[in-house]
Amino acid sequence: MVSATATPAAPRRIRLGMVGGGQGAFIGAVHRMAARLDDRFELVAGCLSGDPQRARASAAELGLDPDRSYDDFESMARREARLARGIEAVAIVTPNHLHAPVARAFLRRGIHVICDKPLTTSLREARRLRELVARSGCVFVLTHNYTAYPMIRQARAMVAEGALGAIRVVQVEYAQDWLATPLERTGHKQAEWRTDPARAGPAGCIGDIGTHAANLACFVTGLSIEAVAADLQTFVAGRALDDNAHLLLRLSGGARGMLWASQVAPGNANGLRLRVYGEKAGLEWAQEEPELLRFSPLGEPPRTIRRAGPGTHPAAARVSRIPAGHPEGYLEGFATLYREAAELILARLEGREPDRARGPLPGIEEGVAGVAFIEAVVESARRGGRWVGLAR
Amino acid sequence: MVSATATPAAPRRIRLGMVGGGQGAFIGAVHRMAARLDDRFELVAGCLSGDPQRARASAAELGLDPDRSYDDFESMARREARLARGIEAVAIVTPNHLHAPVARAFLRRGIHVICDKPLTTSLREARRLRELVARSGCVFVLTHNYTAYPMIRQARAMVAEGALGAIRVVQVEYAQDWLATPLERTGHKQAEWRTDPARAGPAGCIGDIGTHAANLACFVTGLSIEAVAADLQTFVAGRALDDNAHLLLRLSGGARGMLWASQVAPGNANGLRLRVYGEKAGLEWAQEEPELLRFSPLGEPPRTIRRAGPGTHPAAARVSRIPAGHPEGYLEGFATLYREAAELILARLEGREPDRARGPLPGIEEGVAGVAFIEAVVESARRGGRWVGLAR
Amino acid sequence: MVSATATPAAPRRIRLGMVGGGQGAFIGAVHRMAARLDDRFELVAGCLSGDPQRARASAAELGLDPDRSYDDFESMARREARLARGIEAVAIVTPNHLHAPVARAFLRRGIHVICDKPLTTSLREARRLRELVARSGCVFVLTHNYTAYPMIRQARAMVAEGALGAIRVVQVEYAQDWLATPLERTGHKQAEWRTDPARAGPAGCIGDIGTHAANLACFVTGLSIEAVAADLQTFVAGRALDDNAHLLLRLSGGARGMLWASQVAPGNANGLRLRVYGEKAGLEWAQEEPELLRFSPLGEPPRTIRRAGPGTHPAAARVSRIPAGHPEGYLEGFATLYREAAELILARLEGREPDRARGPLPGIEEGVAGVAFIEAVVESARRGGRWVGLAR
Amino acid sequence: MVSATATPAAPRRIRLGMVGGGQGAFIGAVHRMAARLDDRFELVAGCLSGDPQRARASAAELGLDPDRSYDDFESMARREARLARGIEAVAIVTPNHLHAPVARAFLRRGIHVICDKPLTTSLREARRLRELVARSGCVFVLTHNYTAYPMIRQARAMVAEGALGAIRVVQVEYAQDWLATPLERTGHKQAEWRTDPARAGPAGCIGDIGTHAANLACFVTGLSIEAVAADLQTFVAGRALDDNAHLLLRLSGGARGMLWASQVAPGNANGLRLRVYGEKAGLEWAQEEPELLRFSPLGEPPRTIRRAGPGTHPAAARVSRIPAGHPEGYLEGFATLYREAAELILARLEGREPDRARGPLPGIEEGVAGVAFIEAVVESARRGGRWVGLAR
Repeated sequence: MVSATATPAAPRRIRLGMVGGGQGAFIGAVHRMAARLDDRFELVAGCLSGDPQRARASAAELGLDPDRSYDDFESMARREARLARGIEAVAIVTPNHLHAPVARAFLRRGIHVICDKPLTTSLREARRLRELVARSGCVFVLTHNYTAYPMIRQARAMVAEGALGAIRVVQVEYAQDWLATPLERTGHKQAEWRTDPARAGPAGCIGDIGTHAANLACFVTGLSIEAVAADLQTFVAGRALDDNAHLLLRLSGGARGMLWASQVAPGNANGLRLRVYGEKAGLEWAQEEPELLRFSPLGEPPRTIRRAGPGTHPAAARVSRIPAGHPEGYLEGFATLYREAAELILARLEGREPDRARGPLPGIEEGVAGVAFIEAVVESARRGGRWVGLAR
Repeated sequence: MVSATATPAAPRRIRLGMVGGGQGAFIGAVHRMAARLDDRFELVAGCLSGDPQRARASAAELGLDPDRSYDDFESMARREARLARGIEAVAIVTPNHLHAPVARAFLRRGIHVICDKPLTTSLREARRLRELVARSGCVFVLTHNYTAYPMIRQARAMVAEGALGAIRVVQVEYAQDWLATPLERTGHKQAEWRTDPARAGPAGCIGDIGTHAANLACFVTGLSIEAVAADLQTFVAGRALDDNAHLLLRLSGGARGMLWASQVAPGNANGLRLRVYGEKAGLEWAQEEPELLRFSPLGEPPRTIRRAGPGTHPAAARVSRIPAGHPEGYLEGFATLYREAAELILARLEGREPDRARGPLPGIEEGVAGVAFIEAVVESARRGGRWVGLAR
Repeated sequence: MVSATATPAAPRRIRLGMVGGGQGAFIGAVHRMAARLDDRFELVAGCLSGDPQRARASAAELGLDPDRSYDDFESMARREARLARGIEAVAIVTPNHLHAPVARAFLRRGIHVICDKPLTTSLREARRLRELVARSGCVFVLTHNYTAYPMIRQARAMVAEGALGAIRVVQVEYAQDWLATPLERTGHKQAEWRTDPARAGPAGCIGDIGTHAANLACFVTGLSIEAVAADLQTFVAGRALDDNAHLLLRLSGGARGMLWASQVAPGNANGLRLRVYGEKAGLEWAQEEPELLRFSPLGEPPRTIRRAGPGTHPAAARVSRIPAGHPEGYLEGFATLYREAAELILARLEGREPDRARGPLPGIEEGVAGVAFIEAVVESARRGGRWVGLAR
Repeated sequence: MVSATATPAAPRRIRLGMVGGGQGAFIGAVHRMAARLDDRFELVAGCLSGDPQRARASAAELGLDPDRSYDDFESMARREARLARGIEAVAIVTPNHLHAPVARAFLRRGIHVICDKPLTTSLREARRLRELVARSGCVFVLTHNYTAYPMIRQARAMVAEGALGAIRVVQVEYAQDWLATPLERTGHKQAEWRTDPARAGPAGCIGDIGTHAANLACFVTGLSIEAVAADLQTFVAGRALDDNAHLLLRLSGGARGMLWASQVAPGNANGLRLRVYGEKAGLEWAQEEPELLRFSPLGEPPRTIRRAGPGTHPAAARVSRIPAGHPEGYLEGFATLYREAAELILARLEGREPDRARGPLPGIEEGVAGVAFIEAVVESARRGGRWVGLAR
C-alpha cells in the first residue's frame, strides 16, 4: 500500500457545542463523526433537542457532562460564553427556521458558528445574519458538505485553471425517492419538518437538496446563478411544499444550465450529479461514486481521474486521507469541512491569518446566495416560469 | 448458446428506391444496411444526390442499374411509377427541407414512403403532407429509429401495463459534442446543412436531435407534450441555429419533464438518455448502452433487465434477433423499423390487414407532432421562455 | 451526425452455400445476417439440416431455390461444384463433429470455406484438415467472431505497436449461466448437442466458449499459449462434459495468464472479458459493452476509448460502420468477418493478391491451435492439474 | 434525508496503545481514524517506530503524553501493564515479521490485541501465537478490514441463509499497480519492507493482498480453502518476492475457485473483487464501489442492492452509519472492526458475554488460516503448480 499523505502535526482541539442533533435526528450524528475523524474538535456542550427531556437523554447518550446539557439555546450561549473553558464554536443542526435565531445567539457572544443549510427561511433574515457575522468577527461555515469531496475540489481547480475554457453549459441534478409517498404522515420526523413550511421555509425539495445542487454548480464553475426560470411541482397529494423542481439557469459569463431536484424519483437515493461543459472540455461527477471524475478534453478519449490516483490535482490531494482505490465517502468530505473550519477558527483564536487564505469553504455569502436562489425559484414558479433574477 | 427466436418464413422482398444518401452522406448507408439486414427489401433505384454526377457515381458504387439512377426525384417518381417492376417504396434521406417535396412526388403516385426526421421544416407543410398521406392510402414511416430498440419497446410496454403507475417526471436528454467547434466552416457536409436554416429549417440542435428526444419520451410514456418553455443557445460564434437547448416540458396527464439537447458538450457522442418516474417505479435507459433497462420499483432494489434475458417483455423479444449478452445496436434497431415497415407495406400491397395493428411504428402523426414541437420551442425561446402550447 | 467512413465501391457478390443452420438452430441465422449486412454474399444453396424434411422446410423459409436445397452435404458439394454458377464458398454451421467431414467435402472441390469453431473434435483431424486446406488453395476462415469487434482490433494494434510494452499478465474469462440447470434434458436442441461428447467433442464449456476466450487472448496479445494447468468441473449432475473450467496459462514471451470459462454462473449472459497488462499499460474490454476499450498507461488516468471516437486506431476505424455512440454489436462484428472473408475469396477467385495481406482473419492455424488447446486442457485436468504443453 | 440508525448509548472509551504507525507509515493513520470514528477508543500510548527518534517525533505529532511514548515495544508492554490507567488494548501496525513478537509481549500481560495481517511470517509462529491467545484469555482481532463493509456482511448473510444454494464457483481477485516498477529501490518505505523477505515473510503480493482476497472469499461463502495450485511470478527484475500470483482453489463442500493477486497491473488501484456463484444465484461485489452488491437469482433480472437501501439485510444495516446513497467507504469499514473489537474487549473487561456471540470479526483462527494459505501457495508454486492442501 502506498502512503498518500504525510502525518500533519496535531494542533489543539477546539471546544465545540451543538444545537439540535438529538435522538431521532440524522444530521447531528453526521456532524459529530465528521468533527471527530480528524481529531480537531471536542464536543463538550449541547442543546440537543427543543424538548428538554430528549435533550438531556441525548446528552447522556453522548457522554456529555450533564451540567453542560442545556434546555434552550439562549441559556447555552449565555452560560458557555462566560465559562472559563466554554465552547469556542457551535454546530447548528436544527430544522431550517432555527438556524438564524440560534446563530445570532452565539455570534453575538463571539462564538464561531458551523451551520447547516439552507442558511435561513427568508432572504431578509439571511442578510441580517450576514451583517451580524461581519460585525462579530466570527468564523461562519455553512455545511455545503459536497463541496469538500476531493474530486469536487479537483473539478473546481481544473475549471479555475482553464482546463475547460469558457463554461457553456451546466447540468446539475439531485434526485431522491424517499418522499415519493406521504411519509410525513407516518410520524417520520425527518419528513415532517422538511415538508412543513413553518420549519422548512418556503421551499421543500428545492430548499433541502436543490440548494445543494445550485451551490455545487457555482462552487465548481466559479460562476454565479444570475436568473432562474422554474417549474415547481407537488406530486404527493396534501403536501404543502414542492417535491420536484425543474429549473432553467442563467449563469454569469454567459453560461446556461438546468437543475433538476426531486424527492419522488424511484430508484434514486442521493443522486447528486454535476456535468460541466466548456469550450475545450467536459467534466462529469456523481456523488454516489464520488471518487471518480470524468474529464473529456474535446477530441481526446475521456479520462477517469480517481481520487489520489494519477492526475490528481494538489487541491484534491490536500483533502485526501487514504490511497487511491480505497474509497473515501460522505463522512470524509464532511470531516474535511470540519477540519478546514478548525483551521480557520484556530487562526482566529490565535489572532493570526489562517495558513491558506479562506479558500473554498462555504460561508455566509454562500448562505445568502442560497436563500436568494430559493426565493427566486419560488417567485419564478409563482409567475408561471418567468425568468427571475437573483437578489444579493 | 441459446436460440432467441424462431426463424420466420421469408416473404417476398419489396422493391425500394432511395432519394439522397449518395457519396459523403451518412444516413443513407445506414438505411441501406437496415433495409438489408432482415432481407425484406431490394434496392433497385435511386436519386442519390442532387448533383447528377455524384448521383450516378453513387449508384455505380452501389451496383444499381444505371438506367434506374435518376438525376432528379421527380423524374424518378414519374418513371418508377410506370415501370412494370418499378419501386414499391422509397426511402427519403435528404436534408430536411426536401423531405416534403420528395415525399409528395412519390405519395402522389402511390409509392409508399420511409422518411427521415424531422418531417418538414414548417408545421404548415407537415399538415399538408399529412393530408396527402391520408388521401394517398400509402404507408408513411418516419425513422425515429430509437423507438425500435428492444428495451425501448419493453419500457413502453411496461409503462402501458401500469408498472410505473401514473407518470410524474420525465427526464430526457440528447448530448453530442461534434459541433463544439465551427465544423461547418471546414467543408464538413453533414455539419453544413444541419447548421443552415435554408436546409435544416428553423432549428438546429433541437430539430436534429431534440426531436428524437421528445419523440422517445412520448413513445415510451404514451403521453404527449402539451407545452414547452425553452431557452435556446448558440454557443459557436457565427452559427445561425441553436446548438444547445434547455426545455421544461408539460405533458398530458399532469406529468412534467425536462429536455436537454446539445451538440457542444465535450465527451458526449450520442448521449440520448431517458428516465421516467411514476408513482410506483422508475425506468432508466441510455442509448449508448441500449441492451440494458434499469427498472426501480419503489422500495425494492433496482433491477437491470437485459435484452432477451430474464424479465424480457414479449414486446422486446419480438424485435430481438440474438440471445442476451450478444449486443444488438443501432443498426439492428433501424432494421427493425424497416422490417416493420415491410410488414405494413406488404399488407397494403396485398390488400390485407397487417398481422398486428399498426403498432408502435412512428408515422405521419409523429412527424407532425415533431414539427409542432420544434415550432413551439422556437416560439417559446423567442418570447423569453414563456410557456407555449403545441399546435396539432 | 458525423460520417465515419466513405462508401466503398461495391464489388460483385459471392455465391454462398450453407451446411447446417436450419429451423431451431441459432448460429445459422447469425451467419446469414452477417453475410447480408455488407452485401458481399448471396445465399443460393444449402443443406440446412441433417433431417431432409427439416432441410427442405428451412430452405423454403429462406426462399432458396428448392433445386438447390440438398439432403446431404456430399451431394451438395458434388453438384454445386459442377454447376455453372454453383456456390463459390460454403458456410459450415453444424455441430462440432461435422465441421471436418463437411469442410473436406467442399475443400476437395475447390470451394472456399467459412467454418464455425472449434475446428474439429480431435487434433489429429484438425491437422489433416490443415493439410487439405494447404493443398486445396482455398480460403479457410474460422468464425472466431469476437476478433472482429473494432475495439478488439484496436487492442491488438495497440499491443503490436508497443503501447503496453512487454506483456506480463493476461486475464480472460467467458461466463454464461444458461447451463446452470440440466437444460439438455428438456429437449433444448442447443443444449443437447453441446453437452453430448459425440457431437461436441471431448470438452463442453471449454470447447464451446473457452476456445473463444483463448483465441481472443492470443489474437489481442499476439502471443501463443504454450502450456495450461487445468481444473475442469461438471457441476450439473448427470452431465457428461465440463460446464466450468479454471485454467492457468503460460504464454510465449514469459507472460502468464488465467482463463475462466463457465456456463453455470448465474447473472452472466455472454460475459467474455479480456484484460491485458504490460510493463507500460493495461487494456480492458468486455464483450457485453464492446464499444469501449479502457486503456490505462501506468501513472496516467485511464482513458476510455470509444469505437469511432477520439483515439480510434485505423485498425478499428477500418471495421467501423457508423459514428461513435451509435452502438455496433455482435452482428456487425460477425459481418466484418464475412466482409473480410469476401475480400480474400474474391481476390483468390480473381487470381490476385488481396488488398491487404491476410491480416487478422482467423483461419486454419487458429483452428488447429484451438483444438490443441482443448486437448491440452482435457489432458491437464485428467492429470490433476499438471502443466501440459500445447501441441501444434 | 432519512435517518438510518438510532443513536446508541455511549459506553466508556477503551485505552489504546499503538506499535508501529509513525511518520511515513500508511496503515497506522488509518487505524487511528478508524478507532476515532465511533469514539470507542482513546489513544494514550505508543511505540510508533523502531527508530526511537522517529517514535518520539511521531508521538509529539499525535499529541501523546511524551511519558507514554516508548522506544521499544517490550518496555511499553511492561510499563503500561503496571500503570493504574495503562492501556487496555494495543494496535499492532508494524511490518509483518514483528506482528508475532509484539503480540506476544502484550498478550503475556493480558493486554488485548488488534493486529494487522498477515498474522505472522511462518505457520509455526502463527500456531504458537494461537496457543498464547487461548491461554491469555485476551481478545485478538485481525484487521481483515474488508470483511466489515456492510455489503460484504450482507453477502455473507445471504449465502448463509441459502439465497445462492450450494456454492459452486468463487472468483476473487485483488489487483494493484503500484509495484509495476521497482519502487522499492527509490526509498519508498512501504515498498521496501513489503518486497523484503526478512520483513514481509515468504510471500510478497500473495501475502500482502492475496491473503485479503482469500480471507474475503472464505468470509462471504463460509467455506474454507482446502487446497491450492499456484503459479507465482516476479515480473520486476531484481525483486525477491512474488508480485503477481495465479491460483486455482478447491474449497470445502465441492466449490472451486480462482484467485488472482497482482501488484503490477496498470490501471488497478485496489481492485479487490469477489464473485460467488451458487446453484440458485450469483453475487458480485467490488471494493472500489463497495456500496453496491449485485445479486442475480437464476432466471431473474439482476438486482443492485445498495447499502441502507431497499433489500438491505439486517447484518448490513447493523454496520451502516448513514442513509443510502451517501457513500461509506474504507475508513467506515475499518472503524466497524474497531467498534466491534471495542464491544468484545469491553465485555471481557467487564466480565460479561458480549452482546452478540463473537460474530464475524476475524481473529486468531483467520490469522492461522491466512498463514497456512501463504505457505501452501508458496509450496505449490515451488513444486510446479501441484495441488497442495492447507495445513491447520
